[in-house]
Amino acid sequence: MRARELASTYPTVTLGSGALEAARMLATQRLPGVLVVDSDGAPYAILPASRLVKLLVPAYVIEDPALAAVVDESHADRMCQALADRSVAESLPRERTRPPVVDAGDTALEVAALMAREHSPLVAVVDSRDGNRLLGVITASHLLDRLLEVT
Amino acid sequence: MRARELASTYPTVTLGSGALEAARMLATQRLPGVLVVDSDGAPYAILPASRLVKLLVPAYVIEDPALAAVVDESHADRMCQALADRSVAESLPRERTRPPVVDAGDTALEVAALMAREHSPLVAVVDSRDGNRLLGVITASHLLDRLLEVT
Repeated sequence: MRARELASTYPTVTLGSGALEAARMLATQRLPGVLVVDSDGAPYAILPASRLVKLLVPAYVIEDPALAAVVDESHADRMCQALADRSVAESLPRERTRPPVVDAGDTALEVAALMAREHSPLVAVVDSRDGNRLLGVITASHLLDRLLEVT
Repeated sequence: MRARELASTYPTVTLGSGALEAARMLATQRLPGVLVVDSDGAPYAILPASRLVKLLVPAYVIEDPALAAVVDESHADRMCQALADRSVAESLPRERTRPPVVDAGDTALEVAALMAREHSPLVAVVDSRDGNRLLGVITASHLLDRLLEVT
């Protein structure tokens, strides 16, 4: 079993996409994170759902969590404005999470070993014989599924 | 919007459950991790999918990734044996990931603030007025969904 057979299509956004678009993608598809690609379509970063949640929380609440309980509930619409005003590039943490990348020809065990070392819930699959074109993503749960079904 | 209205049922395993059962649960439901509860049913740990993948990889491959490429593919059945022989308790990392916990009466903003601080893809919801009984889980993607729909 090779990485190319394990790869599934996975939604991606570009650095120029809106943060709100990324959040809606995560929300409707119940994804743990979205894959960000650069202008060449190469895997650039993972934008985790918890990071987008963080952008919704006013800075003074992050600093003093006790304030969260007393903020007006109707504040929610202004929370989402924080996403509408931002691009994906502006939403990434300073130290971006680079997605682990495997080649289409790598074995399932190579994929598993990389995922284990990086503690990553997903790896991106590229085809080194085709200019490192992104073929898709392998999530940890999907890899488990495929490995368990052969037994 | 309070935590109790945001909580969804989420599959749990106990410390005595088999690791293979946890892996099958993750795999079939495409979860990023499974919630482990103690003998009182209280949230105890998150067992991430990448940890279960790690248990499938022979230790000598973790130490020397180059070996992954040369291991016989038919090794997969023996890989899964590693899970069949283990309990969930034996599968957790030494430093377990404690699930962030919120109370049923906490506001959506309190939930978001905790999730942001802990960089966690999920929080457990307990009812402090009912012996901290586990009500369910709020995932980051679900919280985003609920916050975005009110705007």
